[in-house]
Amino acid sequence: MEHYENFKEELQIRTEYAEKVIRRWLPKESGFARTMAEAMNYSMCAGGKRLRPILLLETFRMFGEDEQLAEPFMAGIEMIHTHSLIHDDLPAIDNDDYRRGRLTTHKVYGEAMGVLSGVSLLNYAYETMLKTFEMTSDADRVIRALKIMSEKTGIHGMLGGQSVDVENDGKEISREMLDYIYEHKTSALIEASMMAGAILGGADEEQTALIEKVASAIGMAFQIQDDILDVTSSSQELGKPVHSDEKNHKVTYVTLFGVEKASEQVLQFSEQAQSILENLSNKNKFLTALIMEMASRRK
Amino acid sequence: MEHYENFKEELQIRTEYAEKVIRRWLPKESGFARTMAEAMNYSMCAGGKRLRPILLLETFRMFGEDEQLAEPFMAGIEMIHTHSLIHDDLPAIDNDDYRRGRLTTHKVYGEAMGVLSGVSLLNYAYETMLKTFEMTSDADRVIRALKIMSEKTGIHGMLGGQSVDVENDGKEISREMLDYIYEHKTSALIEASMMAGAILGGADEEQTALIEKVASAIGMAFQIQDDILDVTSSSQELGKPVHSDEKNHKVTYVTLFGVEKASEQVLQFSEQAQSILENLSNKNKFLTALIMEMASRRK
Repeated sequence: MEHYENFKEELQIRTEYAEKVIRRWLPKESGFARTMAEAMNYSMCAGGKRLRPILLLETFRMFGEDEQLAEPFMAGIEMIHTHSLIHDDLPAIDNDDYRRGRLTTHKVYGEAMGVLSGVSLLNYAYETMLKTFEMTSDADRVIRALKIMSEKTGIHGMLGGQSVDVENDGKEISREMLDYIYEHKTSALIEASMMAGAILGGADEEQTALIEKVASAIGMAFQIQDDILDVTSSSQELGKPVHSDEKNHKVTYVTLFGVEKASEQVLQFSEQAQSILENLSNKNKFLTALIMEMASRRK
Repeated sequence: MEHYENFKEELQIRTEYAEKVIRRWLPKESGFARTMAEAMNYSMCAGGKRLRPILLLETFRMFGEDEQLAEPFMAGIEMIHTHSLIHDDLPAIDNDDYRRGRLTTHKVYGEAMGVLSGVSLLNYAYETMLKTFEMTSDADRVIRALKIMSEKTGIHGMLGGQSVDVENDGKEISREMLDYIYEHKTSALIEASMMAGAILGGADEEQTALIEKVASAIGMAFQIQDDILDVTSSSQELGKPVHSDEKNHKVTYVTLFGVEKASEQVLQFSEQAQSILENLSNKNKFLTALIMEMASRRK
């Protein structure tokens, strides 16, 4: 891979931009429902790499110029992602007390508020993304982007993947089912980010289909790297418990193939994503560098 | 009130129509995520009066003709409503084992699936309503209706009301807060139903604002009637536990004002709704009859 100069500084600039966008679209903490707004914002402001909004923005930049148009969707995708983390951490699901080094939402606000603030973030994502219609006369792009977001989030996307993951917790599962879970639980939202970015930026159907393939491969690489870090990293580095897969008898790429083989697969998926990107006429060197960086991340 | 002939038969026709529409838009029970689809459909097919889709349809009929256009929103509003019931029944919230005479969703499918299938129904509502764009060239109406649905569902609508209700469970609360809870937890979705129906049918802003007032009053009447039935009805009639408000030390219109005064308020809100409706140039006699029927319902 070509060296990308000042990658860290460039990533920092984008992370700060994403952070600013996200905070601008958060609900106000006022009125009777103030506590729920606080719970929503607590989880939204818990740090995180903001990868999905950055992927959305960078894919938008491949095709379009007026990037303000991408902002409600950048905030929206992070709300959808955060909603899934809040619910994942609930006692009825993973029962985790810590996330990103802080107490999880239900530990601070109680379980009922954990359920409700999670759902409210999902709904607020739609409320926020719908505001894009006021920013453009090209309603068609917004409609197509909204459809992708809803499909990739729902039963045929992320939530479907979560449900299968939860249903088969601790069970022996087939490679086919494991791939289904990864493609849905993790890849689907990466696909939603990049496809919505592409569509809002003006990508045609063919280009959007290629972006979906890129995103699918990135998602797989990202999830397998997650499995690897669960085995090779420390709790302090990661900001969440490690060795949890082993403890929970969870089938992963690492338990199936071992760390070394899994690492090769991460590299293969990343290279696959990179090679499709390079064959597109629209270039974004930062995006390519980001993908390779994601594949070698340590946390 | 003017007598409406064959009201029961006419209501039955509309209930069956709503039922058919809802079932047509449910997710398919296939693939790896089959269990979640089953859980979603279990709760969607548990009976219920289908009041919100019927209100949506009847308000649509005041303004528009091609009522097929209202169908995805009829299904969508029932999905949003049902999602809130599934979550309300969870152990972390009301901890109810029965709803409409059947085991609640989490009792059949487990708590994790209760959380996830509830959220999935909310998301599927958006997926479904977004399909309306394929059925009309008038995108603007669909956009406006979607905005209303998202605002009335979220933190400034139903979910906001639920959060305040949950947060103040068993506490002494002010009349002001009680009204906030009723207007949001209950009225907001009635408003969403009728406003979306009006907008999709072609109502202008002024007409939509009047419909919002009608729906707000209907919602209040409906919720206060709910409080009354909790005291005066039997568990068998209602299909869910009675006297639960007293048991949970819940402040309601009945605990504040007594059954007789609360009944008067139901009548007042219903007459208010009726009188605004009658001043609109677009008439729907069945809708007026339905409102009065809702105010005197026994279950």
